[in-house]
Amino acid sequence: MPDSPAREPADLLITHGLILTIDRADTTLRDGAIAVRGAEIIGVGPTKRLLDAYQPTEVIDATGQLVMPGLINTHTHSPAVLYRGLIEDLPLEAWLEKLWVSERQFVTPEYVRLGAALAQAEMLRGGTTTAVDMYWHPEELAQAALESGFRLVAGPVYFDGDAPDRQDTDSREASGREFLQQYRHHPTIIPCVMPHSTYTVSPKSLGRARDLAERFGALLSTHCAETATEVRTVSERHRYSPQGLLDELGMLDERTILAHCVHTSGSEIEQLAEKHVTVSHCPLSNLKLGSGVAPIPAMQKAGVRVTVGTDGAQSSNDLDMWTALRVNATLHKGVHQDPTLITAREALRMATVDAAEAIGLGGRLGSLEAGKLADVVILDLRRPHLTPLYDVYAHLAFAAGRDDVHTVIVHGKVVVRGRDMLTLRENDIMAEVNVLARDIQQSQR
Amino acid sequence: MPDSPAREPADLLITHGLILTIDRADTTLRDGAIAVRGAEIIGVGPTKRLLDAYQPTEVIDATGQLVMPGLINTHTHSPAVLYRGLIEDLPLEAWLEKLWVSERQFVTPEYVRLGAALAQAEMLRGGTTTAVDMYWHPEELAQAALESGFRLVAGPVYFDGDAPDRQDTDSREASGREFLQQYRHHPTIIPCVMPHSTYTVSPKSLGRARDLAERFGALLSTHCAETATEVRTVSERHRYSPQGLLDELGMLDERTILAHCVHTSGSEIEQLAEKHVTVSHCPLSNLKLGSGVAPIPAMQKAGVRVTVGTDGAQSSNDLDMWTALRVNATLHKGVHQDPTLITAREALRMATVDAAEAIGLGGRLGSLEAGKLADVVILDLRRPHLTPLYDVYAHLAFAAGRDDVHTVIVHGKVVVRGRDMLTLRENDIMAEVNVLARDIQQSQR
Repeated sequence: MPDSPAREPADLLITHGLILTIDRADTTLRDGAIAVRGAEIIGVGPTKRLLDAYQPTEVIDATGQLVMPGLINTHTHSPAVLYRGLIEDLPLEAWLEKLWVSERQFVTPEYVRLGAALAQAEMLRGGTTTAVDMYWHPEELAQAALESGFRLVAGPVYFDGDAPDRQDTDSREASGREFLQQYRHHPTIIPCVMPHSTYTVSPKSLGRARDLAERFGALLSTHCAETATEVRTVSERHRYSPQGLLDELGMLDERTILAHCVHTSGSEIEQLAEKHVTVSHCPLSNLKLGSGVAPIPAMQKAGVRVTVGTDGAQSSNDLDMWTALRVNATLHKGVHQDPTLITAREALRMATVDAAEAIGLGGRLGSLEAGKLADVVILDLRRPHLTPLYDVYAHLAFAAGRDDVHTVIVHGKVVVRGRDMLTLRENDIMAEVNVLARDIQQSQR
Repeated sequence: MPDSPAREPADLLITHGLILTIDRADTTLRDGAIAVRGAEIIGVGPTKRLLDAYQPTEVIDATGQLVMPGLINTHTHSPAVLYRGLIEDLPLEAWLEKLWVSERQFVTPEYVRLGAALAQAEMLRGGTTTAVDMYWHPEELAQAALESGFRLVAGPVYFDGDAPDRQDTDSREASGREFLQQYRHHPTIIPCVMPHSTYTVSPKSLGRARDLAERFGALLSTHCAETATEVRTVSERHRYSPQGLLDELGMLDERTILAHCVHTSGSEIEQLAEKHVTVSHCPLSNLKLGSGVAPIPAMQKAGVRVTVGTDGAQSSNDLDMWTALRVNATLHKGVHQDPTLITAREALRMATVDAAEAIGLGGRLGSLEAGKLADVVILDLRRPHLTPLYDVYAHLAFAAGRDDVHTVIVHGKVVVRGRDMLTLRENDIMAEVNVLARDIQQSQR
């Protein structure tokens, strides 16, 4: 083909893929292509048309592969991968106490940086390109993300009493304010104020968190109604349920992400819908800790924006969004004995476009459309467990997994290529983690 | 080291692995080794000791890897991978009817052979070395397994009326008798008589199935109490529940494997324990089809032998035992709000030693011990999602997956090595499946 002067420059052209856009019309393209310039998608269409239209610097041939938006994990504590599998078979409250006692010995900025690097390697390899990450020393989470190329939602944690980071609310808030100042207009780090919960943070400190989020127009995320014990404790202490207290403090709006909402009443579900609050449903963590099964179908029916999270690997052992997506798409059908609940398509949207809206990037992220940010995952389809292919949504919700992820692009940059992690030295990270893990394990004896 | 004349010959020595034996004492060995001769494990112990004791033909260095018994899937319909994702969002009865109408057009011996080959490739790659496989034309399942090196439990299906294989009970039973005759002493094909269920097979045909199994001392497996509708239908028709009818017909004993048992009463659970019947729990299929959640903790408490299955990919979309294992190990904790239910160790035993007992190979399979059959899976541990490693059982139940499986040995023979399938031409199989799948899809329009 002669080089036409009419061809627009592009940094990257992904060609010959099965493109699952997850746009409003559920467009899929066979032999489709995506053009990327800088951090943005500039074209989506048939390969032939895009080859004619663009002059790319780099071409990725996605023959036999599926091209889809990166998955968005709306609730995790990423450095807690350092505790994966250490404390098992306890209910949430006893388990948290044991975890926190140990974390108080180990949580330092270096610990957070190392744990976040390991977690981001795991998430990126698995096709998760963004996470809402609540952990101590958020500036270290951000440094890790800038290095790995991960898109991160993070910010200051509020926690009263004897916290794992051994800081007080004043000092945590002071560095938090710096964090919000520094990242308020950042292209890949999205600030979020993170009061831990209504059972660990006083109404006064919750109010400070709210004020800080408002001042910076930041997101706000907290745990809510994870266990029956939490609801009872908070109700006895404050005469409000956890959600009721958050509402009383003016903390429920479209910038709020509530993790869990397992023990949420019908009227509370209505309130979540009315106030446009996002729920981060973490089915595997809720099951494993014995917390219960969140009323997701009722939330859907009421119009609540439901998204999906893995929670931290200290409780759910890995950060695999595919398993979370699959369990979300099957659990509620089984528990309610209704196989029509939560379709594969809905489950995929929860983990992509709906989650993008939840983090304030509706219209900018979560689907493959011109003008959106280029967070793109390419999966191998030529595998026994994905053969034959009749329904791409059913494949992704019920059969695909992290092992199918071949190439990952975040903000226009290739971070995983052919299962090779390009941005992180994983072997060095794992070696360092293994040394630290010996100390953590010793401390448990 | 000088070659000592005292060293015993071995065909294979796996060295320097973390060995999870799943023996009665839960022995794990760091820097452990396994010696194999023919189909059998002849030694398990420290690498140094086994290197001194054996003169192996082949050595597999498992440094940085975990060595464990192969997983045993106690309920599937393997060729139904050809329907993976085609029929979605329907309750079991409507879904089965739609599936059977289509299968009647396509099920031939060639179809079964091809579907079984694809399914066995998927299972072997994922570390599943044995399956109880209920499908039409079991002789084709067996041929596929002999070629792939898979350990198979299969045999004649009983089904009254308009069956997908378009055979009648007499002809199916005649070829079934040949099957049982042919494989009754076979080393890797284990005969099992497979009446479909109490709602699709008359008491008379169920009795014939029972007699055939008894005559050959074969296993017997059937669906039981999968949905509330099934229990109602059978109770109305026969004045017995599905399990009650099986008992009335003398079909409940230690050679019986009942798939599902979702809608099983307390007294029925007691009966399963008393009669030493095995339950094959298929959590993902039960959830996805909206069938419900089986009362597994009550079964455990009553002493019922519970094992795990994936069911067919027509309902559960893939044949991944890791996901089944993980969902079994988390689902019941969540539903009953008790995180102490079904420990990681118990979940692993259900998928290995307990399943080996269920298929009549207790003492011969399911753990890595001298004198047992060499069905061995080697997993990579040097991966971000498996780092750090504190608790190997928690890792396997909650974080490991098919993507971690590196090498698979069945009956002493290496069938997957370094993620390469040695026994099957997967690309040819997938290409052939894709051609057939186009016809199947067309027929649905």
